[in-house]
Amino acid sequence: MTRSVMTASAGHQATVTDSPRPVSIRPDHYPTRSSAAVDGNGRVRWVDRNQPTVWTDAVQMHDHDLEHYRRAGYVTNEALLSGSEVERYSTELQKLINDSGLRDDDRVITEPDTGAIRSIFQVHEISDMIAELATDPRVLDTARAILGSDVYIHQSRINYMPGFVGNGFYWHSDFETWHAEDGMAIPRAVSLSIPLTDNHPYNGGLMLIPGSHEHFVPCPGKTPEDNHRTSLIMQQVGVPSRADVADLAALYGIEQFTGPAGSALWFDANILHGSANNITPYPRSNIYLVFNSVDNVLGVPFDVAEARPEYLAARDGTPLVPAR
Amino acid sequence: MTRSVMTASAGHQATVTDSPRPVSIRPDHYPTRSSAAVDGNGRVRWVDRNQPTVWTDAVQMHDHDLEHYRRAGYVTNEALLSGSEVERYSTELQKLINDSGLRDDDRVITEPDTGAIRSIFQVHEISDMIAELATDPRVLDTARAILGSDVYIHQSRINYMPGFVGNGFYWHSDFETWHAEDGMAIPRAVSLSIPLTDNHPYNGGLMLIPGSHEHFVPCPGKTPEDNHRTSLIMQQVGVPSRADVADLAALYGIEQFTGPAGSALWFDANILHGSANNITPYPRSNIYLVFNSVDNVLGVPFDVAEARPEYLAARDGTPLVPAR
Repeated sequence: MTRSVMTASAGHQATVTDSPRPVSIRPDHYPTRSSAAVDGNGRVRWVDRNQPTVWTDAVQMHDHDLEHYRRAGYVTNEALLSGSEVERYSTELQKLINDSGLRDDDRVITEPDTGAIRSIFQVHEISDMIAELATDPRVLDTARAILGSDVYIHQSRINYMPGFVGNGFYWHSDFETWHAEDGMAIPRAVSLSIPLTDNHPYNGGLMLIPGSHEHFVPCPGKTPEDNHRTSLIMQQVGVPSRADVADLAALYGIEQFTGPAGSALWFDANILHGSANNITPYPRSNIYLVFNSVDNVLGVPFDVAEARPEYLAARDGTPLVPAR
Repeated sequence: MTRSVMTASAGHQATVTDSPRPVSIRPDHYPTRSSAAVDGNGRVRWVDRNQPTVWTDAVQMHDHDLEHYRRAGYVTNEALLSGSEVERYSTELQKLINDSGLRDDDRVITEPDTGAIRSIFQVHEISDMIAELATDPRVLDTARAILGSDVYIHQSRINYMPGFVGNGFYWHSDFETWHAEDGMAIPRAVSLSIPLTDNHPYNGGLMLIPGSHEHFVPCPGKTPEDNHRTSLIMQQVGVPSRADVADLAALYGIEQFTGPAGSALWFDANILHGSANNITPYPRSNIYLVFNSVDNVLGVPFDVAEARPEYLAARDGTPLVPAR
C-alpha cells in the first residue's frame, strides 16, 4: 500500500513514499487543470508527448500491429477470443451483473432508477475468469510488448448497457484523469477493450482520433473534491475544449472501432476517444483492462489532494505473472 | 386553404371540406394513439401496409433503384448535386440561418440559449433556390415516379446542427405523425434528404430499418394539445415501443445512410428511422423535402381536433410543375 503525501511547498512537484519504485520529487511533465499553461488567446498549450508509445523492440505482436499502435495510438484484433470463449465470458458477465450481493459494493455502478448494474470495477479481484484473462499470454504478452516491462492492472471493469438507453461519453484522454487524479506520471499504460457484443458503426462504438496520443491536451478547470463520485456518470472536468478536439480531428480525422464480439481494441492511455449514444435495440457489453508499467506506478496525484480509491486506480504495482 | 371539421359522432371517421379532392367520410386504415389496437399482452397490433410503396411502373429512376426503394423503403443517390451546387446551396443555407429577420418567424426553430437558427420550415416559400430544387427534374421526376401521380410539397425545411452538440432523434415513422396529427390518409408520400455536409457513420447519420415501411406500428398514448410546439424538440408521443423497434430490427436489421455532401436519401413516409447524437466536431446540415401525392391531400387529422400549422403540413395540394 502506498501513502501519498503532498509536500506543502512543492508546487508542481510531489512526493510519494512506499511505492514499489519510490520517487522522491517528481516533476510534472503534463500539467493540466489548475496547472494548465494557457496562451494569449486563452487556448491551452498542448504538450508534445516526450515518451515512446511502444517501449520495446521485441515483437510479440506482428510487426505491422505494433507499428500501427505506435503510429495511430491503437490497434485492433478481429478475433482475440474464440466463439466459445465469448459465450463463457458473456455468461460470467451476466452472472456478475445479476449478483444482487454486489449492488451495495462501492465498486459497482448501478442505474439510479432501477438498481440495475451497469459497471463493476476491480472485477479481476471479483471474478477468477477475468483474472485469468489478464494473465493469458494472448493478453499479457501484448501488454508487456507495448510497455516494455513487467505490468500490473491499473484498472479493470466490465460494462453492460442494454439497448435504447446507452449514453455515450464525451471526448477525453484517460491519461489526463489518471495523471491529475491518480498520480500517473507518464502515459506508459495501455487499455484493452474486448466487446462481448457486436460493435456496429451505429450502436455507440468507440471513436478515436488516431495520432492524438502524441499530444497531451491540458483540460481547463480545477478538480472538485470527490470528483470521481460523479465523474463516472457525467464528466465535468478533464474535458478538452471543443477547439482542441476540432483541431485534432482536422489534423488526424476520426476512426471508429467496429468488430464482432470477441474482437479487441488496444489503445494508448493518452489517445483522445469518445462515443455517441446508442438508440438501437442492440445492447453493448465489454471487458476492460488497463495495464500500467511497473516503472510507472502511481505517486501523489498532480491536481487533487487525495487520490481516488484503489478500485479506480491500483497502487499495488506487483507484476502480473504470465500463465503458461 | 382548407377548413377542417371533425364531425362529432364520426368515431374513427372524419370529414374534410374545401380540399382539392374532398373526401367526405374517411375510414382510418392506420389507427394509432387513441385508436391503437392492443393485444392481450398489451402489445399494439401492427397494421400491414395495404398500399404500394412505388405507385408507378414508369422507370424514371434506374430499375434497380426503384426496386430497392420498393423493397427496402429507401434508396440513396451518391451524387444528386454537383460540387458547385453543394457550394451554392451551402451558401444559401448560411445566408438563411444568419438572417436575423427570420428569428421570430414561427417557421424557425432556434436554440433556446443562443437564439441560433437550427431549422427553417416551409423554406421553399422563403428561398427561391430551394423552390427551384423542388421542381428540378432530377428531383421532381423521381418523386412523381415513386408516387405515380402529380405531387406537391407536404413539408420542407433546412437543418443546421453545429458539431459537438447535435442531438439525435429517436426511432419514429413520419407517417405515424402525419396521419395522427395532419390527417394524411395513407403513406403515399416520399421524403428527400440532401446532406450539404459529409455523413460519416459516426456523426449522427440517419439509421433506417429497411422493410419496416411494410408495417404500420401504432404508437401508444394520446396526443396532447399543441403537441407540435414541443414535439419538434423532444418527441413525447408518436414513439413506438421498444419491443416493436426490437422486433423490427430483429426482422430486418439496421442500415445507415452515409455519403458525401450532395448525395441524397429518398425514403418512404412509413419507414422507421432515427439517429444517434453527434459529439464530433463535424457539423451537419441538410435540405429536406417531403412530397405527397395530390391523390393523398390532407384531411381532418385522425387523432387531434386541430390540424398542425401549414408550415408543418401543407393543405394546398396544387401540383408542382416540372422546370424544363
